[in-house]
Amino acid sequence: MKKNKNKDGFSRKQFLMSAGGTLLGGGLLTSLGFPKAAKASTTEPLSKQINSSVAQPRGIHRVAADPTKLPPPITRKTPKTIHVELEATEIIGEIEKGVKFHYMTFGNQIPSPFIRVRQGDTVIFTLKSADYNVYLHNIDFHAVYGTGGGADATYVTPGTSETIKFKALYPGAFMYHCAVPGMDHHISAGMYGMIFVEPEEGLPKVDHEFYIGQNEIYTDGDSSGLGIHSFDFDRMKEENPSYVLLNGEVGALSSSGRGAIKVKKGETARIFFVNGGPNLMSHLHPIGNVFTRAWREGAILNTPERFLQTIAVPPGSCAVLDMDFPVPSTIHLVDHALSRVMYKGMGGEIIVEGTPDKSIYDPDYKLDNK
Amino acid sequence: MKKNKNKDGFSRKQFLMSAGGTLLGGGLLTSLGFPKAAKASTTEPLSKQINSSVAQPRGIHRVAADPTKLPPPITRKTPKTIHVELEATEIIGEIEKGVKFHYMTFGNQIPSPFIRVRQGDTVIFTLKSADYNVYLHNIDFHAVYGTGGGADATYVTPGTSETIKFKALYPGAFMYHCAVPGMDHHISAGMYGMIFVEPEEGLPKVDHEFYIGQNEIYTDGDSSGLGIHSFDFDRMKEENPSYVLLNGEVGALSSSGRGAIKVKKGETARIFFVNGGPNLMSHLHPIGNVFTRAWREGAILNTPERFLQTIAVPPGSCAVLDMDFPVPSTIHLVDHALSRVMYKGMGGEIIVEGTPDKSIYDPDYKLDNK
Amino acid sequence: MKKNKNKDGFSRKQFLMSAGGTLLGGGLLTSLGFPKAAKASTTEPLSKQINSSVAQPRGIHRVAADPTKLPPPITRKTPKTIHVELEATEIIGEIEKGVKFHYMTFGNQIPSPFIRVRQGDTVIFTLKSADYNVYLHNIDFHAVYGTGGGADATYVTPGTSETIKFKALYPGAFMYHCAVPGMDHHISAGMYGMIFVEPEEGLPKVDHEFYIGQNEIYTDGDSSGLGIHSFDFDRMKEENPSYVLLNGEVGALSSSGRGAIKVKKGETARIFFVNGGPNLMSHLHPIGNVFTRAWREGAILNTPERFLQTIAVPPGSCAVLDMDFPVPSTIHLVDHALSRVMYKGMGGEIIVEGTPDKSIYDPDYKLDNK
Repeated sequence: MKKNKNKDGFSRKQFLMSAGGTLLGGGLLTSLGFPKAAKASTTEPLSKQINSSVAQPRGIHRVAADPTKLPPPITRKTPKTIHVELEATEIIGEIEKGVKFHYMTFGNQIPSPFIRVRQGDTVIFTLKSADYNVYLHNIDFHAVYGTGGGADATYVTPGTSETIKFKALYPGAFMYHCAVPGMDHHISAGMYGMIFVEPEEGLPKVDHEFYIGQNEIYTDGDSSGLGIHSFDFDRMKEENPSYVLLNGEVGALSSSGRGAIKVKKGETARIFFVNGGPNLMSHLHPIGNVFTRAWREGAILNTPERFLQTIAVPPGSCAVLDMDFPVPSTIHLVDHALSRVMYKGMGGEIIVEGTPDKSIYDPDYKLDNK
Repeated sequence: MKKNKNKDGFSRKQFLMSAGGTLLGGGLLTSLGFPKAAKASTTEPLSKQINSSVAQPRGIHRVAADPTKLPPPITRKTPKTIHVELEATEIIGEIEKGVKFHYMTFGNQIPSPFIRVRQGDTVIFTLKSADYNVYLHNIDFHAVYGTGGGADATYVTPGTSETIKFKALYPGAFMYHCAVPGMDHHISAGMYGMIFVEPEEGLPKVDHEFYIGQNEIYTDGDSSGLGIHSFDFDRMKEENPSYVLLNGEVGALSSSGRGAIKVKKGETARIFFVNGGPNLMSHLHPIGNVFTRAWREGAILNTPERFLQTIAVPPGSCAVLDMDFPVPSTIHLVDHALSRVMYKGMGGEIIVEGTPDKSIYDPDYKLDNK
Repeated sequence: MKKNKNKDGFSRKQFLMSAGGTLLGGGLLTSLGFPKAAKASTTEPLSKQINSSVAQPRGIHRVAADPTKLPPPITRKTPKTIHVELEATEIIGEIEKGVKFHYMTFGNQIPSPFIRVRQGDTVIFTLKSADYNVYLHNIDFHAVYGTGGGADATYVTPGTSETIKFKALYPGAFMYHCAVPGMDHHISAGMYGMIFVEPEEGLPKVDHEFYIGQNEIYTDGDSSGLGIHSFDFDRMKEENPSYVLLNGEVGALSSSGRGAIKVKKGETARIFFVNGGPNLMSHLHPIGNVFTRAWREGAILNTPERFLQTIAVPPGSCAVLDMDFPVPSTIHLVDHALSRVMYKGMGGEIIVEGTPDKSIYDPDYKLDNK
């Protein structure tokens, strides 16, 4: 599986494969009614831009989103017009220590920035593409009524931008993602996030809100295989990834990796979870805990399900998940397809601090105590 | 992966494999309690029929069902006895332009004909097998209480027929499919459809009803690989298809392919969706729209879920999905395991005609307007 | 794929791979925040124990749990303290006639013993490891609030035991399983079961309760390949099993195999279903029947779904499923990813005895009768 690589670690062959994949996909996609030509703000052919940009990937970057950084609940009671801007970026990052990968993101983070609006709000949204980019990008919001969820109107070549306006008519947690031909590659590389459309009546109060995304990456190396991993389109077609991750990196949410989430005993929390995929179902489970309330698919108007051990979140969908913390513990959040935990980097931590309550959980119980 | 093929494009080896697969499957299946011997209307051994029929596949045929052709809602308020007849057929069709495949269907279409009855109705059902067929067939209705859902009583060899009678005791959208040993092959090749048992009180009214099915096909070629594709049993065992399709063909439901679904702004529609599989979960999503009401698994007595972006439909299950169309747009209906869209022919179109409503979606918004 | 095997059929290479897998997994897992070192009751290094124990697997054993053996519903109205003990065992069994495999279990059965408590009960739980074992084991209960669901406090080396105490705070059907590094291997080999936390108000009454588990096994042989099958870690990473089974054996629940489940026409039954995985979603379907009530994820406080044909049960989750039996029939319980039925040993039988009711199902209807 070795490939010749240039000094930036990305082979010309890979770029041709990728461009070729896009063209091939474009051909098949056209017969499916997907648009062949993008609405581009520049007349320069994309192929020329791709070739001229190959040598300019950005430096090593930390891509994992901080799970605690998201806008607070909306308290206003009337609709508003909101401006949102995201920048599509292509950056070199590390999947795990010593494994470099060519990520793509909105806003330099995975999952991409959490957008929070209220049902009835009007959103004026601008997508920019960093001038050092190589690929064509756009954005599809699952919260938008309109062709492509905005994708057809937001194709951006490097250094350009596009703006759309939409009204958030229905509430819930919705995925957004890049949706160019080759979208599976772009999402796998990190281009997905959540827009949460707050229902008019708001949400039940919790002490903490966290923002977590899952995606799988298809590389030509296995986990722990040091060096530069190129994207593996054949593995993607077979839906057989080398990594299945939370927030885009091995250990992004763990104390021995990038840093765990922390809460205190007796508090409550809500996880906004988006499964970017591009292909795999997530079977999310909090080890040593349970989802006290779960809104499947992020469909916030539904009656929440109670005490779910595991929730299946399809690729291209979301979930809103509430948790209680009655005892101090370290909770591992995992996809319960456990070989993804054992071999593919899946997992994150929530550390619950506080004094033990042995009436609920006593790990040191001695049988001769009774 | 090349194989010797006869002039009809189907190799003797493939037939032996298929027959062998059936025999092997039959051996394993017997230890699982599945019946080994079919109730056949002829005493001629199946193996002899298979060999003698190899040279007689039917000519090229369009297999994609017209998604707008289904019986109207039932308005009567009392049960009735209904006669239904389906014919099992084996036909050569095109998966996409230039790619021939040996389909199997009920009624020459994929998904097979939509059967509509009312809860409490009695159905007298006859299954015929076309005399030019090669394989043994039967039918299993998920709406039937009885061994095999009718399968054990409806084994038909070419040129024969069988009849069963059943009462539709419980309401909902249910799959039916061929269920002989080798059923995964037969379903992959097209032998599945929906029987909808209308609840006594009927359904909320909509302006349109559409009928769509998903199945994956396992061939020894990749998409866009012209020529004749043989069935690939090894890929099926690995659940790694070459095609994942709506209504059995690439482009079956798209304007640049076979023809899109059309609606008008302000109308409402209901999609009756069946996932034939035989193996893959579907993660159905309408790009640029949302399911306003969704009955998961087609379980029509449940409270519908609201505003689902994506719904997981297991192989062997159904969904009933309502949509609104507040703006003109082209909606792509996809399995959000997006590599299936990029590489395997997945996708269909709903074109919403009407005048734009820029208060809801403005794809041409100019930032300097404000 | 042949490997050198010693006289017990388990190669030294396999053990090294397994140990290596554990070490490798441990490395990756540590960066995810999983504990590297177990709390062991012995100071003897595990590696030494593994090597010294290689030659001592236990004799051939029937591993399939009797689906009718589970504790009755709890009728008391107040909480209680309950003692539960399980023993981790490693045993040679047969996946199907002539195919030997190195199983691992709790209590010598798959699924492992059904534990039944009432919401609010306190459980004093002891895990023992049989002295002839080779591997390290522990236990994670999805019903436990506390680190690892108990796993971090219950690591047991061969011949030792550990005890924890916990209060069952929330009701439902929950999986338990071994959760050492290498847990996917241990679960695939059989170490999973259900703890049912009865809600305070109890459950709707039924005539029968059954206990069924699904797991997939990854071996270096295909089904029906006689001899000794070694565990195949590469296939597990690819989530491509050789067997997908009910109760751990081909034919465990069928009349031509180990014995079918039997009920009488007019009775009702409840299936407690646990999907061990370790990786695959189950799409459970009763052929020729329907789930009249279904508690998805085993979440017993939810409103049950009605008349489900198929239910998706994620790996690491459960379902509680009610059935009616209006006609005599043989019901095949299957994962509706049907290639698992055709090729991988999936399937079980429920035989409904009684006199036919031709008003509901008449398999012998003659068209000329009308």
